[in-house]
Amino acid sequence: MQNIKSYIKENQQRFIDELIALLKVPSISADSAYKADVLETANIIKLSLEKSGCDHVEICETEGYPIVYGEKIIDKNLPTVLVYGHYDVQPPDPLDLWNSPPFDPIIQKTDLHPEGVIFARGACDDKGQMYMHVKAMEYMTSQNELPCNVKFMIEGEEEVGSVNLSKFVKANREKLKNDVILISDTGMIAKDVPSITTGLRGLSYVEVEVTGPNRDLHSGLYGGAVANPINVLSKMIASLHDENNHITIPGFYDKVENLSDAERAEMAKAPFSLDAYKKSLDIDAVYGEEGYSTNERNSIRPTLDVNGIWGGYTGEGAKTVIASKAYAKISMRLVPNQDWEDITQLFKTHFENIAPKGVKVKVNPHHGGQGYVTPIDSDGYKAASKAYEQTFGKTPIPQRSGGSIPIVSLFEQELNSKTILMGFGLDSDAIHSPNEHFGIWNYLKGIETIPWFYKYFTEISR
Amino acid sequence: MQNIKSYIKENQQRFIDELIALLKVPSISADSAYKADVLETANIIKLSLEKSGCDHVEICETEGYPIVYGEKIIDKNLPTVLVYGHYDVQPPDPLDLWNSPPFDPIIQKTDLHPEGVIFARGACDDKGQMYMHVKAMEYMTSQNELPCNVKFMIEGEEEVGSVNLSKFVKANREKLKNDVILISDTGMIAKDVPSITTGLRGLSYVEVEVTGPNRDLHSGLYGGAVANPINVLSKMIASLHDENNHITIPGFYDKVENLSDAERAEMAKAPFSLDAYKKSLDIDAVYGEEGYSTNERNSIRPTLDVNGIWGGYTGEGAKTVIASKAYAKISMRLVPNQDWEDITQLFKTHFENIAPKGVKVKVNPHHGGQGYVTPIDSDGYKAASKAYEQTFGKTPIPQRSGGSIPIVSLFEQELNSKTILMGFGLDSDAIHSPNEHFGIWNYLKGIETIPWFYKYFTEISR
Repeated sequence: MQNIKSYIKENQQRFIDELIALLKVPSISADSAYKADVLETANIIKLSLEKSGCDHVEICETEGYPIVYGEKIIDKNLPTVLVYGHYDVQPPDPLDLWNSPPFDPIIQKTDLHPEGVIFARGACDDKGQMYMHVKAMEYMTSQNELPCNVKFMIEGEEEVGSVNLSKFVKANREKLKNDVILISDTGMIAKDVPSITTGLRGLSYVEVEVTGPNRDLHSGLYGGAVANPINVLSKMIASLHDENNHITIPGFYDKVENLSDAERAEMAKAPFSLDAYKKSLDIDAVYGEEGYSTNERNSIRPTLDVNGIWGGYTGEGAKTVIASKAYAKISMRLVPNQDWEDITQLFKTHFENIAPKGVKVKVNPHHGGQGYVTPIDSDGYKAASKAYEQTFGKTPIPQRSGGSIPIVSLFEQELNSKTILMGFGLDSDAIHSPNEHFGIWNYLKGIETIPWFYKYFTEISR
Repeated sequence: MQNIKSYIKENQQRFIDELIALLKVPSISADSAYKADVLETANIIKLSLEKSGCDHVEICETEGYPIVYGEKIIDKNLPTVLVYGHYDVQPPDPLDLWNSPPFDPIIQKTDLHPEGVIFARGACDDKGQMYMHVKAMEYMTSQNELPCNVKFMIEGEEEVGSVNLSKFVKANREKLKNDVILISDTGMIAKDVPSITTGLRGLSYVEVEVTGPNRDLHSGLYGGAVANPINVLSKMIASLHDENNHITIPGFYDKVENLSDAERAEMAKAPFSLDAYKKSLDIDAVYGEEGYSTNERNSIRPTLDVNGIWGGYTGEGAKTVIASKAYAKISMRLVPNQDWEDITQLFKTHFENIAPKGVKVKVNPHHGGQGYVTPIDSDGYKAASKAYEQTFGKTPIPQRSGGSIPIVSLFEQELNSKTILMGFGLDSDAIHSPNEHFGIWNYLKGIETIPWFYKYFTEISR
């Protein structure tokens, strides 16, 4: 791996150009209007994997968007690393908040990134981070440095809940067999504070519909006399948290693991400035469950948030209407041991129970996933830790993340292997938001660090 | 007035034919494509007023559609009645729900109307009801029965908010001077239950904006740790009503008039079937302020309803986002004595006060109007009541409406006179909806009843 730095230096402009080409295709899996673009992106990934030295690259059809698979098996006696990533992206709205078009990538310098960042939807999540692996693979195969077997599985439905991945994994257990799974779809604490995500939250995502009268009504003639679905929905949502911001769904906390004081003290050592956090979000105060710190609230504690709400007249001006229906999209982040299907059922039962007379309530589960924890004494964790030491000169900090990658627990269950989350993004990358970006320094540092993981993992697991 | 019945009998076919001719012109004020039709309608009204015996009939230009004015001053010492109506109509869409073309009137019998109804846009609102006054005037002048002075003011912008009427009224206070204003643009309880609308609710309409973090955030990474504007907005909206559905804004009820038990008992006499009401709306229960009946809730009590709400991801599928902003349109229906500008200020102050730390709140007032009451001991009310007794054989029921007709309080303020709302329409007439219609019985009954109002008002107010 000794010449990785010089290889990157020689090829970095091409690495950036290739990523930019990939970012130009709007592979928005949530919106069927972009179907052709999502499929085109799958094809670009197939070609990239072939160029990086993978064999048997194929576009595996599913009932939704395809999964791109490729592999390089050099010796059946050597360990196998399975790389997972996704080529689909979040919708870019609200478009008017972007400073440049989301699918017309531009490079600009920022205070945090004097080396420049690429602004585009998917720059970090996950096209940029996924493509680091493709380029690391290119280095290892072209320089004859690949120390073990590799398999790639890149899907196109991560942003819509990986709905068809589970069937694919179950049907291809042998093909996907591996010793460790490697994913870059998370972040690290700071450019000079490498970290490895060891825990992920689970997710339950539902959509609710509240129906009052059978048609929109004139608010003068009916106002005050019938249940207004928007007022009722607001009241129902408000009641899901108590005055201490605990979630009120019966049974919701039953399986939540309570960390020991020692563990919480360990967590509290991670560098964190509440002032900087508030300043970066332009808020005068944080908000959340009583008795927990900000970092605990967004990692070891389950939460409930409304992700979208709509109903009635939302256009310009005024319309005095009582809407017939109101809707919300609600998601719960779960911690390990909370089963997402159980929680979805608890939510559904509770939400239906609290509906007042005069309205009808429907709860439609969207999707979900289990939480996950990687032990820091596993081979994979140790190999990743050494790789970061090699390229950052620092031991990375193990960190629980508040996000969910539901497939990680699916992989453990179906493939019986642990996942290592080597993220190179930063909190400030604005993933899922307008002006998403990815630092060029981070992109290249990822490409540099990944081959060392292969080397150390092969050594340690022998 | 003794020969009014026989006069109507002799002329009823002509009365119906004239109304049908008027209904054939699509005077849709909201759609500029119909400008020529709206102007043609103003001209038809001018000719009708002239034929009915009015003097000095003129088309008064405004910045929008003209106001048709006409008068018959028989003696300066006699009282003057000002008739207001409008010749413009609502747009007819959705067209595909009409059983016959909206501007090609047809007469059909229905269960409720064995005498036949006219189906057409504007049949009831307000061409049919306004034209009753023109035909009543024709009777009185042709038979030399006009007991007092009359002024007509028929506008063409009622369905788009009477935007130019206020300026016209302010500029023509002397010309419009009167002792009572008479309007037929409301309904009555049933064909055999005459009623007079004595109260209208006022309105305060605001838009609110709640801002949390300065950008949309990933709900996994930030969920539970920052104030979510949608959850916060829901909580704030929920808190605007207490457990008895009283509005919690401090001072909101200070000026609300509490009706006496006797008055409430009088109101309760109006025939009303809760079962039929629930069935027509397909709801299993009504909802509203504790301690009041449905008819009280939508007439004598002030209310607060959300007319629209939006924020976050509202498209297809799922997006795990914490929105930066959430919005709602909120309107309050007010009762007489509640000043809409005071209430708007109370709302604004309260809503800003209840915002938790971690969010910023903006309240943008849209518009409003005052409520209105006609005392049942006023000369105008007494005259109207006697007129109904004369022609229906029953004392009409005074009834508060939940809707707002802002021009009525404008008239009181600028012209210093009370308005009598003698409506002959029915709830089932489907005004503003497809298949609007007006019963021929109601049309002719209106023409029969109106002259008696003139007679009794002249006698009582002398």
